[in-house]
Amino acid sequence: MSIPADFRLLCRREKFTSHTSGILPNYMQANLLILPGEVANDFERLCFRNPVPCPLLAKTKGSFDKLDNDFLINHSGQGFDIRTDIPKYHIFRGGRLIEKSNNCKVYWRDDYVGFLIGCSYSFEGALINAGLQPKNSILGKNVSMYKTKRYMDASGIFAKCPYVVSMRPYKEKDLGAVRSITSEYKLTHGEPIDWGFDGAIRLGISDLNTPEYGDAIDIEDDEIPIFWGCGVTPHLAVETVGHLIRGYVITHAPGCMLLLDATYKEFSATC
Amino acid sequence: MSIPADFRLLCRREKFTSHTSGILPNYMQANLLILPGEVANDFERLCFRNPVPCPLLAKTKGSFDKLDNDFLINHSGQGFDIRTDIPKYHIFRGGRLIEKSNNCKVYWRDDYVGFLIGCSYSFEGALINAGLQPKNSILGKNVSMYKTKRYMDASGIFAKCPYVVSMRPYKEKDLGAVRSITSEYKLTHGEPIDWGFDGAIRLGISDLNTPEYGDAIDIEDDEIPIFWGCGVTPHLAVETVGHLIRGYVITHAPGCMLLLDATYKEFSATC
Repeated sequence: MSIPADFRLLCRREKFTSHTSGILPNYMQANLLILPGEVANDFERLCFRNPVPCPLLAKTKGSFDKLDNDFLINHSGQGFDIRTDIPKYHIFRGGRLIEKSNNCKVYWRDDYVGFLIGCSYSFEGALINAGLQPKNSILGKNVSMYKTKRYMDASGIFAKCPYVVSMRPYKEKDLGAVRSITSEYKLTHGEPIDWGFDGAIRLGISDLNTPEYGDAIDIEDDEIPIFWGCGVTPHLAVETVGHLIRGYVITHAPGCMLLLDATYKEFSATC
Repeated sequence: MSIPADFRLLCRREKFTSHTSGILPNYMQANLLILPGEVANDFERLCFRNPVPCPLLAKTKGSFDKLDNDFLINHSGQGFDIRTDIPKYHIFRGGRLIEKSNNCKVYWRDDYVGFLIGCSYSFEGALINAGLQPKNSILGKNVSMYKTKRYMDASGIFAKCPYVVSMRPYKEKDLGAVRSITSEYKLTHGEPIDWGFDGAIRLGISDLNTPEYGDAIDIEDDEIPIFWGCGVTPHLAVETVGHLIRGYVITHAPGCMLLLDATYKEFSATC
């Protein structure tokens, strides 16, 4: 397959239902969150106030096949359907997962708003290109992710919602290069928010060996943990305040992202 | 005096050297920070990553009398000079205050960049108009401000820099209205980041009676503390990493802001 639109078509036909890590690595991928209209403004402002854990790329505009930023997903002219074009969906009600499905057509309502949120696959590619392949990628594991005691700045119903961070261990001498490379990806979490074992304490992470999400990755004696804002944060936020949301919340299944038509370089040049 | 440009001229002539609270209340005021060019990108990205404590309104563009957002300060055609047009300046070196002055002409260098950062005077006016006058304003005191254990997301040299928050006590029944009114001022700190005595614990504030900045304000039995992002945060940041900054850092003296030509409503409509 040559272009992201073809891949989305595969998903729409339910021919591809797995994770998207490594798929069309030059193109951006996005986390998806679909919310009832009555909480959409609160969520959009949450992203505005907390752009590192919740980097909002675009949102749907009155329909499941229109975005407020055409550039991201309209190069091909083949369009998209946010209800069908990712491999796997999770459906929540009252903050609890109630169904997994390859599309969310039966749950979509016309007042729902879909949010596309940046994902760290872009900067992982850049780290690999610079000879700084993340250990999770070397080991073929998922990245370690932790729920922290750092809270997002509140927005409407989204209060008392903690950051989730991803962690990649590196040698301390590589910290400068790792920070510098990922800082260029400011629309997809950007540089680390903190690092080191003292950083873990500041974030309120009590045990690095037991991540809340993803796989445990050993930190060797000559390595330090480095922490980035993580796209699981908005998912945890809708779980945290799920009891305040009437109707369904729809997300991508972890790792099963939406493929976009733009490269990071193309997209960031428009911002 | 009728317009902000006239007020700036008074400051330039050193006829007005006091705080600007209540001066031309319809117009925006800005916190000022002038930094050596070599750390300006790190600081601009710090603002991008932490827009609630560091709401960047505009920055100078190659000169002390040009902004990247003309709208804010060019209505009158009378222009401005960032080295002279606020009532009082503080000059720092190595993170330490070395001089107070009514202008900073002798310290300005052509590679310096001035940053204008939003200030909460706008939303205090809106609270007063809604019958929710902040207690500090009723008592004629300065707002209480606390150094917290909530850290900003790092950017370049600006690492391990904590939030400063302002605190205004309100009755719990007024929390919803206070949040809603101030949420409209998203370019000048916006709604509270947290609240309540549990919020103080989340922020790592151990004693509400001893604010690090401003005046202590009593919290009555039927009141709760409400916390906002605060424009002192970027000042604390340049003190925190001052040993990493070569050259001078110039700020406004606390309370002595830059008067802008735009109202909040006019400005936010352009964003």
